[in-house]
Amino acid sequence: MFLEIAEITVTDAAGFEAAVARARPLFLGAEGCHGMALHRVVETPEVYRLVVKWRTVEDHMETFRGSEAFQAWRALVGPFFAGPPKVTHSREVPLG
Amino acid sequence: MFLEIAEITVTDAAGFEAAVARARPLFLGAEGCHGMALHRVVETPEVYRLVVKWRTVEDHMETFRGSEAFQAWRALVGPFFAGPPKVTHSREVPLG
Repeated sequence: MFLEIAEITVTDAAGFEAAVARARPLFLGAEGCHGMALHRVVETPEVYRLVVKWRTVEDHMETFRGSEAFQAWRALVGPFFAGPPKVTHSREVPLG
Repeated sequence: MFLEIAEITVTDAAGFEAAVARARPLFLGAEGCHGMALHRVVETPEVYRLVVKWRTVEDHMETFRGSEAFQAWRALVGPFFAGPPKVTHSREVPLG
């Protein structure tokens, strides 16, 4: 399982949060998506972290990004972006 | 509940992972700590993210950082740091 973290600086917190709530089913219905959550950074409250669980990185970067759901997501939330999101993926390291 | 993300660039991946595994009980025994996990960034594998759940930011930044457990943690993992960790906190935003 891979975790996508998209760090997004927004222009309008309330508008962005409402748009993410509306867009949520687009992720939850995507192939290989195992959940999503929205976090807001304490130290810099204009920055959010969208945290999405994917089966593989390709499920996100190829299948989802090539889908109409991605276009719909960007249409909903894009107007609130102050700049391009910084997107990375990570994988949990088993500890002992 | 707050999520600490400490982004750590390391000099020795295997040594760092082993040290985090040994240091784990220091977090799990800390006041207000509700779990920790280690993630490795896919795009930049020399970067790890330590993800720790805290009841409050103060539990981390004041109580834990002022404790002997924090000194023990840094003694274990510090030798593998390529630079100072970038530490932020976030809070989950309820979606709808």
